Amino acid sequence: MITLQACQARDAADPLRGLRDLFSIAPGLIYLDGNSLGAMPKAAAARAAEVVTNEWGRDLIQSWNTAGWFSLPQRLGNRIAALIGAGPDQAVVTDTTSINLYKVLSAAMAIAKQDAPSRRVVVSERSNFPTDLYIAEGLCQAQGFTLKLVEPEEIAAAMNSDLAILMLTHVNYRTGAMHDMASVTAAAHAAGALVVWDLAHSAGAVPVDLLGAGADFAVGCSYKYLNGGPGAPAFLWVNPQHAERFWQPLSGWWGHAAPFAFTPDYQPAPGVTRYLCGTQPMVSLSLLACGLDGFDAAESLGGMAALRAKSLALTDLFIALVEERCQGFGIGLATPRDHSQRGSQVCLTREHAAGGSGAFAIVQALIARGVVGDFRAGDGGVHKDILRFGFTPLYIGFEDVWNAVEHLRLVLESAEWQRPEFNQKHAVT
Amino acid sequence: MITLQACQARDAADPLRGLRDLFSIAPGLIYLDGNSLGAMPKAAAARAAEVVTNEWGRDLIQSWNTAGWFSLPQRLGNRIAALIGAGPDQAVVTDTTSINLYKVLSAAMAIAKQDAPSRRVVVSERSNFPTDLYIAEGLCQAQGFTLKLVEPEEIAAAMNSDLAILMLTHVNYRTGAMHDMASVTAAAHAAGALVVWDLAHSAGAVPVDLLGAGADFAVGCSYKYLNGGPGAPAFLWVNPQHAERFWQPLSGWWGHAAPFAFTPDYQPAPGVTRYLCGTQPMVSLSLLACGLDGFDAAESLGGMAALRAKSLALTDLFIALVEERCQGFGIGLATPRDHSQRGSQVCLTREHAAGGSGAFAIVQALIARGVVGDFRAGDGGVHKDILRFGFTPLYIGFEDVWNAVEHLRLVLESAEWQRPEFNQKHAVT
Repeated sequence: MITLQACQARDAADPLRGLRDLFSIAPGLIYLDGNSLGAMPKAAAARAAEVVTNEWGRDLIQSWNTAGWFSLPQRLGNRIAALIGAGPDQAVVTDTTSINLYKVLSAAMAIAKQDAPSRRVVVSERSNFPTDLYIAEGLCQAQGFTLKLVEPEEIAAAMNSDLAILMLTHVNYRTGAMHDMASVTAAAHAAGALVVWDLAHSAGAVPVDLLGAGADFAVGCSYKYLNGGPGAPAFLWVNPQHAERFWQPLSGWWGHAAPFAFTPDYQPAPGVTRYLCGTQPMVSLSLLACGLDGFDAAESLGGMAALRAKSLALTDLFIALVEERCQGFGIGLATPRDHSQRGSQVCLTREHAAGGSGAFAIVQALIARGVVGDFRAGDGGVHKDILRFGFTPLYIGFEDVWNAVEHLRLVLESAEWQRPEFNQKHAVT
Repeated sequence: MITLQACQARDAADPLRGLRDLFSIAPGLIYLDGNSLGAMPKAAAARAAEVVTNEWGRDLIQSWNTAGWFSLPQRLGNRIAALIGAGPDQAVVTDTTSINLYKVLSAAMAIAKQDAPSRRVVVSERSNFPTDLYIAEGLCQAQGFTLKLVEPEEIAAAMNSDLAILMLTHVNYRTGAMHDMASVTAAAHAAGALVVWDLAHSAGAVPVDLLGAGADFAVGCSYKYLNGGPGAPAFLWVNPQHAERFWQPLSGWWGHAAPFAFTPDYQPAPGVTRYLCGTQPMVSLSLLACGLDGFDAAESLGGMAALRAKSLALTDLFIALVEERCQGFGIGLATPRDHSQRGSQVCLTREHAAGGSGAFAIVQALIARGVVGDFRAGDGGVHKDILRFGFTPLYIGFEDVWNAVEHLRLVLESAEWQRPEFNQKHAVT
């Protein structure tokens, strides 16, 4: 039997515990949705004031030089590169994950057409994050490829002589299941295909080694585990062996070899800089630095390895407590127990005798109690409704986990979730 | 002879003068670069604090609903639509001007291929803003079109049976010359072509009537005359008759008909909403509202018509003072004198007996004196070096104009611009 006191003792003994103080988290809030929008670093408020009042308001266009706006996509890219096993000057922060996927998938298609013209299939997971599938669907139509969606267990069989590109999200947004990047990449390469990884739920959450895995392209999100702020620009990484083979199609001024020469013809910049396009939102872009500061602070405490160990301890604890304290309510586990297959979230399913999962209402009832997770609808088939809980080791503690599960138990036991106000759906993310 | 006192009297009599108080402009600064980056509305500082501390920090993912993040691209689009002669629900604010141009130019190409498959030429101006040309160059290569760059006086002759799309910037960034949108659009339509307008130097600066002109597509920038903040997301407009004819290629989640259904297949949203793609930078996006508030404040004072009248008075005054007070220094006028052909900026050229224009150094010397314009290099041929001065009628006054020209006179008379420190080039925008 796990006790509250034991959880409190684990917090007291946790060398990472002090990192929580870097974040603004309201008293009583148990925020398990950092995999949707990371919490605010306290430093972001002052940084926003600095960028708006001084860099914009006072220094105006001079800030392109004096505040370093012009090099910010690369400087932030280098900081993220250190978290995802990439080298210097291989990553940039710019635009959105969807747009960056468009760029790298376009480049991968151009390479595939040149190196393996008979291969015209792009494979992804049916439960991949939808926007990735939408971007791939549009590009496949435009470029003459076929998009084939499979279940995770069918990926191996899809690595055949038709496969041009395998496009996967490293950690699944619905289940928290994590692919073995090295072995999947090696298998795809052995089959003659390129691999594009989406690190939206990986960067800052789990160790990633893009160069070690020999990956070809990667994109990812900066406002989830990297705590960059709502809609903060996304990142992309290109393996240096591919970086200069093609223009990416969004050939804007910031990806030009000489952006201030104002020449009428496009010449792509060397390396990954050619994946930049237009002027970036400097206030939002600047705030990402505050999120990345959290990882700098963690560095002397063991860095990503220590954060990963704590993340697994948190998710192990959540699973154990749910299984210990929430029995008899139809709760199931959608996230793998195997550490090597688990990201930094735990997803639950629910079977309900009266029909329907009740998952949406349970999530709403938890939110009303200050336990913020989120709901992801199933498809009525193999993909069930999901109660999703993300655990950001920078600011979530063991007592938070105990309290979250206690609230879940109370919601289930009291049938509180059946109240009408928890069953009214509205636009959510 | 125009006197300082006469300029001061014009400020005192100017009903728009009070609008300047909405902006943060340092004492002594004469900011004539609002056509590169608009000045900061004072309200932006508090708004940034609100978005960061409350919407992000306190309310977290709830802000998608409670702070209206989800409808912000459309709400801001509707406010800009009112400034450019567009109807409700025809414009959105999202991504960058370059990326939005990619979307609308892709759609225009798709329409051209279907409606007029023999037409495969896209015409633009050689001195159009380079990023527009880079985007067009890439798309033309990918889609089998030819990009033909001409001088302004050659546009009419280029309207022939090969022309698929005429892509123009309404007000030229180098010269401030303005096209007659209605007559150019009508001529292109009569020739069987579509017209894409870039309003980067028009929106908020000159009256624009997209629907009245029957334009097909438009994009534009929100951080110049709209004062939205550095790199604030851009806007795009699609004529309703075209809006639903095609997917735009950047088919991301926010342009989906049911973005929260998380279905694996893409279904474009109705209307212009399908031109949205990925998650937007909410802090930067939110600050644009402060810039647009300036136009709301101007509404009861005559709105865009009054702002336009003041802009022309300011640029007329600048031209008159330069010609009166800066004779004998090789200064020429690159901007049309005709009001119907002039945007909200004045561009000067310079001939220098010793060779070289000296324009870069003169601009630097002016900046050191607190008169901020910018330099745009020529091409050594027909396009000369430019000293560029933007006049934002929301915050520039007649005394500012007098003082700016007086500083220019002093810089030229004293040969101050020849000092070494004003001749060192570095990255500028």
